[in-house]
This record gives sequence, C-alpha cells and structure tokens, in this order.
Amino acid sequence: MSLTPEQQAEIAASRAARHETRRPTVPALEEILFQPLPVLDHGFVRVTDYMGDDAAIVQAARVSYGAGTKRVREDAGLINYLMRHRHTTPFEMCEIKFHVKLPIFVARQWIRHRTANVNEYSARYSILDREFYIPAPEHLAAQAASNRQGRGEALTGEEAGRVLDILRTDAERTYAHYLEMLNEPEGGGPPLDPARQGLARELARMNLTLATYTQWYWKIDLHNLFHFLSLRADPHAQYEIRAYASAMMETVKRWVPLAFAAFEEYALGGARLSATGLKVVRRMLAGETVTQEGSGLSRREWRELMATLGREG
Amino acid sequence: MSLTPEQQAEIAASRAARHETRRPTVPALEEILFQPLPVLDHGFVRVTDYMGDDAAIVQAARVSYGAGTKRVREDAGLINYLMRHRHTTPFEMCEIKFHVKLPIFVARQWIRHRTANVNEYSARYSILDREFYIPAPEHLAAQAASNRQGRGEALTGEEAGRVLDILRTDAERTYAHYLEMLNEPEGGGPPLDPARQGLARELARMNLTLATYTQWYWKIDLHNLFHFLSLRADPHAQYEIRAYASAMMETVKRWVPLAFAAFEEYALGGARLSATGLKVVRRMLAGETVTQEGSGLSRREWRELMATLGREG
Amino acid sequence: MSLTPEQQAEIAASRAARHETRRPTVPALEEILFQPLPVLDHGFVRVTDYMGDDAAIVQAARVSYGAGTKRVREDAGLINYLMRHRHTTPFEMCEIKFHVKLPIFVARQWIRHRTANVNEYSARYSILDREFYIPAPEHLAAQAASNRQGRGEALTGEEAGRVLDILRTDAERTYAHYLEMLNEPEGGGPPLDPARQGLARELARMNLTLATYTQWYWKIDLHNLFHFLSLRADPHAQYEIRAYASAMMETVKRWVPLAFAAFEEYALGGARLSATGLKVVRRMLAGETVTQEGSGLSRREWRELMATLGREG
Amino acid sequence: MSLTPEQQAEIAASRAARHETRRPTVPALEEILFQPLPVLDHGFVRVTDYMGDDAAIVQAARVSYGAGTKRVREDAGLINYLMRHRHTTPFEMCEIKFHVKLPIFVARQWIRHRTANVNEYSARYSILDREFYIPAPEHLAAQAASNRQGRGEALTGEEAGRVLDILRTDAERTYAHYLEMLNEPEGGGPPLDPARQGLARELARMNLTLATYTQWYWKIDLHNLFHFLSLRADPHAQYEIRAYASAMMETVKRWVPLAFAAFEEYALGGARLSATGLKVVRRMLAGETVTQEGSGLSRREWRELMATLGREG
Repeated sequence: MSLTPEQQAEIAASRAARHETRRPTVPALEEILFQPLPVLDHGFVRVTDYMGDDAAIVQAARVSYGAGTKRVREDAGLINYLMRHRHTTPFEMCEIKFHVKLPIFVARQWIRHRTANVNEYSARYSILDREFYIPAPEHLAAQAASNRQGRGEALTGEEAGRVLDILRTDAERTYAHYLEMLNEPEGGGPPLDPARQGLARELARMNLTLATYTQWYWKIDLHNLFHFLSLRADPHAQYEIRAYASAMMETVKRWVPLAFAAFEEYALGGARLSATGLKVVRRMLAGETVTQEGSGLSRREWRELMATLGREG
Repeated sequence: MSLTPEQQAEIAASRAARHETRRPTVPALEEILFQPLPVLDHGFVRVTDYMGDDAAIVQAARVSYGAGTKRVREDAGLINYLMRHRHTTPFEMCEIKFHVKLPIFVARQWIRHRTANVNEYSARYSILDREFYIPAPEHLAAQAASNRQGRGEALTGEEAGRVLDILRTDAERTYAHYLEMLNEPEGGGPPLDPARQGLARELARMNLTLATYTQWYWKIDLHNLFHFLSLRADPHAQYEIRAYASAMMETVKRWVPLAFAAFEEYALGGARLSATGLKVVRRMLAGETVTQEGSGLSRREWRELMATLGREG
Repeated sequence: MSLTPEQQAEIAASRAARHETRRPTVPALEEILFQPLPVLDHGFVRVTDYMGDDAAIVQAARVSYGAGTKRVREDAGLINYLMRHRHTTPFEMCEIKFHVKLPIFVARQWIRHRTANVNEYSARYSILDREFYIPAPEHLAAQAASNRQGRGEALTGEEAGRVLDILRTDAERTYAHYLEMLNEPEGGGPPLDPARQGLARELARMNLTLATYTQWYWKIDLHNLFHFLSLRADPHAQYEIRAYASAMMETVKRWVPLAFAAFEEYALGGARLSATGLKVVRRMLAGETVTQEGSGLSRREWRELMATLGREG
Repeated sequence: MSLTPEQQAEIAASRAARHETRRPTVPALEEILFQPLPVLDHGFVRVTDYMGDDAAIVQAARVSYGAGTKRVREDAGLINYLMRHRHTTPFEMCEIKFHVKLPIFVARQWIRHRTANVNEYSARYSILDREFYIPAPEHLAAQAASNRQGRGEALTGEEAGRVLDILRTDAERTYAHYLEMLNEPEGGGPPLDPARQGLARELARMNLTLATYTQWYWKIDLHNLFHFLSLRADPHAQYEIRAYASAMMETVKRWVPLAFAAFEEYALGGARLSATGLKVVRRMLAGETVTQEGSGLSRREWRELMATLGREG
C-alpha cells in the first residue's frame, strides 16, 4: 500500500479531529476510522463514515414488532432471531462508507452488487496512477484441471517467472504508452512534447490493462453488506476479492459485534440442505445406510453433502 | 401531536447524550436531533440519525473527477454544477434516518418510493393506538370540478359538519370494534372478556380505517430524498403528504445547506420546457407574436407554458 | 371473485387474440393467460404478460460461463447448479406481469417487496368498488397464545358470529358513508344531492377500512419473484397473502417448470442449518447422543432443529 | 462487426422461428428481432426479447387513474401527459432485453446504471476473443483544452499515426501474452506447451487492456431505459457509449413509437431552466434588456442559457 504524503496528512488530520454528537457512536470502530487497511500489493480498504450500531437494529425491530417485544428478549437474542428468520429490514438501518483502492478486474466483479452507492475515480477527467496488481508468488495459481472456475496450485519455476515478467512488463509498457499518448507526465503537468496535442483522456485510458488500480467510495447498508460478504468471502470467490472481503469483515466485527456474530452463526457458517439432502440426513439419523446411488442426489451433490456432514463420501 | 410520557422521556434522554466522534457533525442538525416536528393533527417527523454533510458530497465528487477539480471551484459552485448536470451519485454519499408518524393513507403513497429502507410498526404483533387523522376545517376540501385529482374550496356549513361527524364517528366505532374483536384494551392487557379468545391481531386490524395513524423508521440517501421531495412537495401532491415534505425540507436545509440551495435553484424552482415549448419561447424572444393555435402546443400545455412564463394565456 | 360483464368481455377478447411472434412462447402458460385465478372471497391473480422461459435462463448462464458450458450439462442440471450456488442473475432474464385484486391490508405487506414495478388503482382519481374481504369461518382465527405473530384455532360459536357481524357491518357502513361524503353513486355518476359539493376523493377514501379490495398490475423478474414466494408462501406468512402466493406458484410452474423444480428442491424445500446446528447433526451422525443442554442451542432453536430433522425434541 | 458462422446460424434460426402467442406483439420490432446492429468497429446491439407495447403503458395508467380516464384522452395524449408530469410507473410495465458486444471501458460506464439485469461473458470461465476497439481516425480526438472531460478535434498526421500504432500493438501484444500465460489457443483447446500448466483464467485476464471487447445480455424496463438514454445519448456523454445509445434509440422507436415521441418532446428535447434562469427569461419577455452581470447567473450559466435560447451570449 502506498500513500502519498498528501494523503497521509489528510488521514492524520481526519483522525485527529474530535467532534461532539448526539448520535450513537461505536468507539471500537472510531479507533480505526479513516485508517487504511492494506489489501493485496497496493490496495486498501478504510472506513470513512458510519451510521447506526447494534442498538439501531434492535430499535428498528422493536418499532416493527411493537411494544410487545420490549425487554422480552435480550438484544443479542433478538438480533439472532431476526437473522435466523430472514427479517432483514432492521439490518438496513445501519449504513457504512468505505474508501477502497482495488485493481480494475476486481472492481468489475464488485460493481455487480447493485444495492450500493459508488463514486469512482474517473479516468475521463484525471490521470490514473502508475500502480498495477502483480500477484505474490503464492497466489500465481494455475488453472484448475477439474473446474473451469477454480485455481490449482501455484505455478513454479520458469513458468512462474515468465508469467510475472509478462504481467510486469506489459503493465509498465502500456502505462508508459498511456502517458505518451496523453502527452502528459504522471499526475498531470506541462505537455511532454509541446508540438503534440495529446489524446483525450477518455480514450487514452483504454490502453491500460485490467491490473491497473482504481479507487472509489462505496456506501452500503448492513443487510446488503452481509449479502456481499457472504458471496465474496466464500471460498468459491476469486482470491483477490476475498482479500477485500476479509479486511472488511474485521471492520464490521468492530462496528456491530452482535449482528456480526449472528451473521457468522446463521449465514457464513452452517449449511443449506436441499430437500433431497435433508431426506438423506433424516434417513442416516434413523440408522439407515445410505449410498449415493440410493440417495436421489447426483454424484457431485452427494460429494458436497458428505463434505458438509464431515463424512467420507 | 401526542407523545406518551415514556416517549417524551426517551427523547429527552437521547437529546441529553453527548458522544465524541471522529465523524463530521452538523451542529445545526444536531440542535433538533430526535425532536419531533408536528405534522397534521397527531403526526410528526423527527431526524434520528444522519451520515455525511455538504463536504461529503464535495469529497465524493472530487474522487470522481480527480485531483483536477481540487480547489478550482468553491464547494458551493461544485455542488451547483453537480445538481445542474445531474451528476447524482455524490449526493448519494449522505444518508438520513427519520422517525415518522403518519396516517395509513399517506403511508400508502409514501411507500411507493422504493429506494429507501423502512421499518414500520406491525399491527400483526402489536395493537395500534387510538389515533386518527381528522382534517382541519380549512383542509376539508371539495372535489375539484375541473380536475379529477385535485381539490376545490373547503366544504362549509352543514356539509362540512356532516363529513367531520362521519369521519370521527366511523373512526371511533371501527376502533372500538377492533379492541372488542381483539378482546384486549388499548395498549394490550388482560382480556376484556375472559370467556372469549380474541381474534388474531393480523385479522382484527383490517377493521380499521385508512385514517388510522401508523409509524415507521425511514432511511434514505440525499439524492433519493431530493427526488421524493421534488414529487411530494409539489403543488400537485396531496396536501397531507405535502405537509410531511415541508417539515422534512426544514431538516434538510439545516443538514446540507449548500445542496439544499442547489436543489431549490435547479430542481424545485425553475421549469422544464418541452421541445415545442422552447421553440415558442425562442420565437417570442425574437419578437414574434405567438398564439396557441400557431404554437404547436395543446391548449392545456399552452396554458401551463404561459403560467410558467408569468404571462396571460 | 366477481367480474363485471365489461371485464369478462375484455378478458375474453384478450384470450381470443392470436399473434405471430419470433419470441419464445410457453404454451402451458399461454393456456391460462389473462384468466383470473380466484383468491379469497373477491380477489384474483392473473398473468397478463411474460418474457422468457427456462431456455432464456440457460442462455444467460451460458453467456456468463462462456462456450465452455455448452452441451456439457443438460439444461435441468445447469439450472439446478445455478440455484444451488446462488448464481441468481440468469433468473433475472425472465419477467412476468400479474394483475391482482387484493384487500388493502394484504397490499400493504406485499408492497414491501421493492424490486417490482407496480401500478395500483388510484382512489385519488376513481371510486373504489363495494368489495371487502370477510374471512371464511375456517380462517377466522384466534390470536395464538404462545406467539404474538401467529394464529390459533378458528373462533367458533357466538364469538365468531359477533366478529363476522362487526366486519361486515363496519365495512358496509364506512363504504356507504364514503359514497355519501363523495356525494356520488358507486361507479361514479350524477351527484346524490345536487345541493352538496362532495368531499374530495383523495380525502373520502380514508373512511374505508383496510379490508377493502384494491387492484394493481405487478411486474417482477423471476429471481425476485422466487424471493417473494419463498417469504410469502412460507407457513409463517399470514394466511391471506399465502393464498396469493399459492395461486402464483401454479402459474410459475407452468411458465418455467425446470426453474420451479429447482426452486422447490433448493429454496422452498430443504433446510438451513446454523453453524451450531450443523455441529449437532455431525455429532449425532457420529453416533453421539446429543441433548439440548449439551447442544449449544437455545431451547427454541433445539426444537426447530429437531422438527427439521423429523425427530422428537 | 464480426460474427462467427456458428453465431450467424443461431441468429438465422431464431429469426426463422414463428410462434403463436396471445401476448401483444409489435411487428415493427419483430422485423429486426435478433438482428445485430453494428456499433463501433466490432460491437453490436441486438434486441433478443421484449414485453409490452404502447398499449401496455396506457393500460397501466388507466388502472392507476381508474375508469375515469377511459376514452377521455387518446392514447398519445395520455402518454404525453404521463411523460410531462413524471408519472413514470406506467412506463415500467414494458421490458426489453438486448445482447450487446462492447469494449470493456464502455462496459464500465454502462454498468453504473444499476436498475437493469445483466449477464456478462465471464473471463473467469472462458477465453475472451481477440477483438479490440481501435477508434476510426475521425474519432481519435485530442483532449479538449477548455474542458477536462471533453474532446477536441481529431488528431492528425504523425501524432495520429503513432497513437493508432500504440493502441493496435499493445492490444495485440497483451492478448498474445494472455494466450501464452493461459497456455491455450484462442477459443480454447489443447495446451500450447504440454510441459506447462497455464495460469488460471481469472488471473490471466488482467493482462488485457480496457479496449478488449466483452458482451452481455442487458434487460431493463422502459422508464429506466429512457433514463439511460437521456444520459448516454447526451452530447456530454463519451462518443463510444453514445454510439450504442443511438443504435438503441432506433429499436425503441420501432417498439413504442408513442412513448418514444413523448420522450423526445419532453426529455431529450426542450430544456431545464433554473429558478434564476426562468426569472431572466421572464424579464426578457417583458422587454427588459438583461446582461450577464445583472442576471444573477454565473458567466458559464449565462452562456448555457443564451445557447438554450438560441441567442448570442
């Protein structure tokens, strides 16, 4: 993660400020407010604002379910109940804003979540920085043989070296050509060659690769953030976006610890059984020996079910 | 507006609290935080939380348009520019939460705005209070003769008296029957008649009229709030929802004064001209005398255009 | 369900029409197109348009996952895979439009689903019909003793009679007063009393009860429809909205039989286990005798888990 | 635009099919259904499905505004009224699905419209084709001197030649390296070098430039499509996305000619005056000579207003 001195000063100033408010605050989150948490080689995530806390969820649930629920349940019990029964609207009462720096190919996956507010750095107006994602050697994965979507072991030896060399060289060369076409230095400035006009920024950017870093402000409510995290912190998600999801989970844990624990218990952890899978479990619990052939499940689903149940397939 | 002593105590406690935060605060809004602003006979609007301020809009715009815009424009100029050119995403970086008490027929119009988060008091779980909207005499409007959607002058004399009598009596009677069917007193408690079981709350509620008050938490971002206000503060909106929009505008003015001024200048105020309407204005400015017949506009559109231009039709 | 002769003629005309199209069609759904399916005492659901079919889901998945998936899986297998792994976007490629007649208190629950397009009959402009929901005797449920949200057995005898009497009488009386205040007959027409002006429609409607029927066009994509159905066809949903969900399920089954089967297998059927619940199942499968006390589950969650597993708690 | 023989056969087959339906059809749109309309050098837009027509808008408006509106207005008049008064929900009753091939940098602008359904070709699963956007000479614009966001005249001579050379060479080279890292030929197949494993597809793709073509299915309702077009067919939009917007407008014109005419009259054409701008127009119409200094408008807004009014600034 690389911050300019200017950015460092801005963050320090924000962190030094102290205001008085009647709004609820969350000291554990305030502790890390504005602070960039490093992700990948040049990326970061930082929380720049938030609204609400665990108590806001409880309060919203109580207006919904009326005076009737008052004091009957403890807060944690109520939040668990809401999560278990998919009463999602009280979680929407909390909102958080992140500043994220991320490679463009990650941004393209991320933006598919439509229920957030976004302001991205615009390469129509401004010049992108000379920063590209180059995977660490242990993440330079081969294509999985069995699974089109997955990764195998990390490449090694000569093949790894060649790949890293290509990624670095192509990123550097296309970026250098980007500046040459713009006829401007990185960060903007007087023309490199006064005799040339320079290509429009909105066109020159198309010479950059998808490994180039961009940045945005991203604001979302807690319910939709949980949905994002449940998909993007999942082992099936691409490693690079998972790295962002992991960093964000740490901030959510600080912010709404009760809701986060409920999310782990009922959404992230546990398992979903299909109708047929549930029948298999019932039969096994009744003492029957069930085989894949007699289960009604495909081989793939059988394997997945056995893995869920912690049994040899 | 009627608050129970319990609610008054809760509001006082919230207002008395002071927390320290690194987040930006808006003192003018903090002043009225949690305070109910009366609307109609028993309703209110109160701000219970907020996130962001004018500076958050500017900051988001600057990440979008890059370092290039830094210090080139003053904040107010930049916010005006964004509003004028429909760059709406920076306004989405601000979020506000209201607690609203409102008649059900108003709630039904309001909920059509889908881009907000809502938690409504649930009459499946709890008993609704004995509160109904009865229009003040000056709002007891006759059906407009010319316009199906509009209101005419207020009813007077015997007709007004009869209408008020019906509204009051029917609301009271249906509410009394609601409690009788529930077999419970207002606010809940031991059965009115121990020999009866009581109808399920989720069914009994259907005996109430649309004048009955409900309440909800309603959370929305500033861009979508402006859209809501531009439709609901409009003279074509029904008076009762306009009353809520007006009260909310006062809170928005305190919260984001620059954005609110831009909203008044470019959205609430001013006018939209159609392609044909614009041609008419250009001809008139060129000194031509234009008539409805020669304008290409229907009579109705001609009348609307002349009103916009402040001229006799 | 009561249709005016005019509505019956319109439906018959729509059903008689035959057009030629290059778009995919679904004959099983065309069979019942435009036909009202009765729900509750005066309500209905009817499909008035649709777009896409099972093949559209497969096609969208194949553009996403590329030529690689072509012919490797059968359509049904691919659709099951998408549903199982929450790849929801291909299901969004199908769209359906319903015309629904429903009591206002049901409409108020329904409208909380924000990801649909709605055009509702407006009582600001037009006069509502004299139609109210009166529960059939077997649905006149008592309040559940154990559960604030639930229903108990149906009321019987004198109490049932009294409740039905109240519901009918109050609905009739408030409706009669509604017309009196409007100074218009049902369906519109010359003033009842030429000496009176009539209250504005937008005000008079508030005298109606929540049992009054309204109607709307409701358009939604298949993914969001499945979400709606999974919540509203659930046994925890109020009976009256469940009745609509059931009728709609029949239409979806005709429309996209493969997707509907996947929805039943992976979403409606089966079960979600919490992290702790899964541990319990694993221990039981390993032969251990687990009790609630040693399970880490609350009594309520234990009871729910045992019910899921088909075992005595 | 380049289609594989396989794609051409698929399109021909879809176009040859004829089905019978009870749904309304739009012959003018059916004529071009499935047919790719070329955009840029390798891109296209084609309509692959639709639902509803002008009559569906009218029908939805009439359920909203009740029997009262029946036959009072002609369809065109009613649709104009809806558009003029921002009654947007009836336009949401129409839905259209496009298949689009477009450069990634255009896709990144496009996807910011969140109210659509999308299935994009996935480079995690499949190999992207060797197709890049190279601007035609007349679109190889210089950066505007006056305006960070805009384009100036086209580059010429040596500078143009150098830019085209860079764009072509870098796109070709990064694509060749992409295949090399994948260790697969374009379109997939046996490894290029059996001794190597090949980098995971989800990683290799990041070496491609933003000029690479991708494709997606994109489905949207008519109201949100109009919003998209009003922003993306605007002269301020980047030329490349405008080219897509223009092609789509032709399809919308065929599909819903009345709604499209209303869109041109009230949204695309015409102008929005600010509150201060409207005051200026009123003063000018009253015969007053108004100058920028006395107008209350900034120089920039004054210039924009004069341009709108067709007058010398």
